[in-house]
Amino acid sequence: MSLPHFFLREQVLAFESALVFALHLDADDTKHAKVLRLAVGEHIAVVDAVSDYFECEIVSFEGDELSVSIAQKLSSYARPEVVLVQGLAKGEKMDTIVRHATEVGIAEFVPMTTSRSVVKLDAKKSKARFERWASIAKSAAMQSGRSSKPVVHAPCSVAGAVDIAKDCDAVLICWEEAELSSTLAEAVSCCIAATGKDPRSLRIALVVGPEGGLTAQEVDLFLALPYAYSISLGPSILRTETAGIVAPALALYELEVRS
Amino acid sequence: MSLPHFFLREQVLAFESALVFALHLDADDTKHAKVLRLAVGEHIAVVDAVSDYFECEIVSFEGDELSVSIAQKLSSYARPEVVLVQGLAKGEKMDTIVRHATEVGIAEFVPMTTSRSVVKLDAKKSKARFERWASIAKSAAMQSGRSSKPVVHAPCSVAGAVDIAKDCDAVLICWEEAELSSTLAEAVSCCIAATGKDPRSLRIALVVGPEGGLTAQEVDLFLALPYAYSISLGPSILRTETAGIVAPALALYELEVRS
Repeated sequence: MSLPHFFLREQVLAFESALVFALHLDADDTKHAKVLRLAVGEHIAVVDAVSDYFECEIVSFEGDELSVSIAQKLSSYARPEVVLVQGLAKGEKMDTIVRHATEVGIAEFVPMTTSRSVVKLDAKKSKARFERWASIAKSAAMQSGRSSKPVVHAPCSVAGAVDIAKDCDAVLICWEEAELSSTLAEAVSCCIAATGKDPRSLRIALVVGPEGGLTAQEVDLFLALPYAYSISLGPSILRTETAGIVAPALALYELEVRS
Repeated sequence: MSLPHFFLREQVLAFESALVFALHLDADDTKHAKVLRLAVGEHIAVVDAVSDYFECEIVSFEGDELSVSIAQKLSSYARPEVVLVQGLAKGEKMDTIVRHATEVGIAEFVPMTTSRSVVKLDAKKSKARFERWASIAKSAAMQSGRSSKPVVHAPCSVAGAVDIAKDCDAVLICWEEAELSSTLAEAVSCCIAATGKDPRSLRIALVVGPEGGLTAQEVDLFLALPYAYSISLGPSILRTETAGIVAPALALYELEVRS
């Protein structure tokens, strides 16, 4: 079983000089620790503000103050970086996608407004959604025992998403109109050959359209990037929320199987 | 874009002698056809009671009677058979799993009561759930443009699920306590080597536990079968509903990539 995981926003454990020190948990994490009824002597996993990863032993837990000592530094499990660029979908679908894709292991979540996205976000809604998704990503990372939580971006335009994808080693656009023979495996092979990198150190953007799909123009904007491929996820038409979970799982699987 | 898909319960199109004939649709499918506002001249895909797959042209649609002519026989896309044995989970999770796993392409869905399943089903509830899952599977198959719909089994015990798994070429048990090095890829390699079959013709059972996981005893019951492997789905702990979607996607991917 994995240890309960906690992420620290600002505290860096390497700066703690005392053997026993208080963890600076967010209010909701303190609440979570109480729900778990964490007791003296129990161990937890802590990821600090610089992503160092520790196993800590609880020395005291009184009121809201949780004090621990470091039991050992853990090695975080390095995975390839998959950036999920997800077309804005309706209702609770985005929540579902960010939750499950975080469990699966995405490194970043980029919510993208497309021309066929039904949901329109004004500045206020956009901020509220962004905060909600960041909070879901954090709690899913805690629950799944990840040694990092994904970076959640503010909702952006297609042009904004293309800008983010520019910094990736490759861009894979999941498109139902792609040939069945355009597979993820092939695209990953091309990307490995083109970059010469170890698959485990690759950073790949995956683009998934909203309910109505991406337009050909939107696909073209991504395809104009170097190392961009439109791929098929198989003979079935996947709903957007299924594709947003399955595509990152397949990409991580393919990259790790080759490492 | 894929054509709207309809599944027939009893009608076999090879037995229709007239060029134009009425489709015997279930009431909910007739309703669905109306919602889609299907019009004369439009094409639909029809999978008949013996799984033959046709593209049909609508000749008339008056009241509840939809008459068509066959435009062409389609070739159904043969996929490896993945049988998802899913530990009974709470609330709407089973609905989510059967919907998304159907899109992904499972051949059969086996809901299994385990010792850690919180939900208890009496005979009446069991029947109601079974009917609900069958209906969700059918509509997800229609929506995803599959040329077949998955077989949904009635809820069964672990012993019952082991019996169903016996008829598969291999059994892969997704278990969070499996070594990280016990990968799906390795298990599939062993299975291909052991059976000598083409990966595309394999029939593989995937076992996913409920929220609390499988007990070691339950895992052992499956491991006693020949060609049974406990596998890890990666370094993260996946929720049961995530595993029930991701595991079949990865298995189908792995089997098809090797075909």
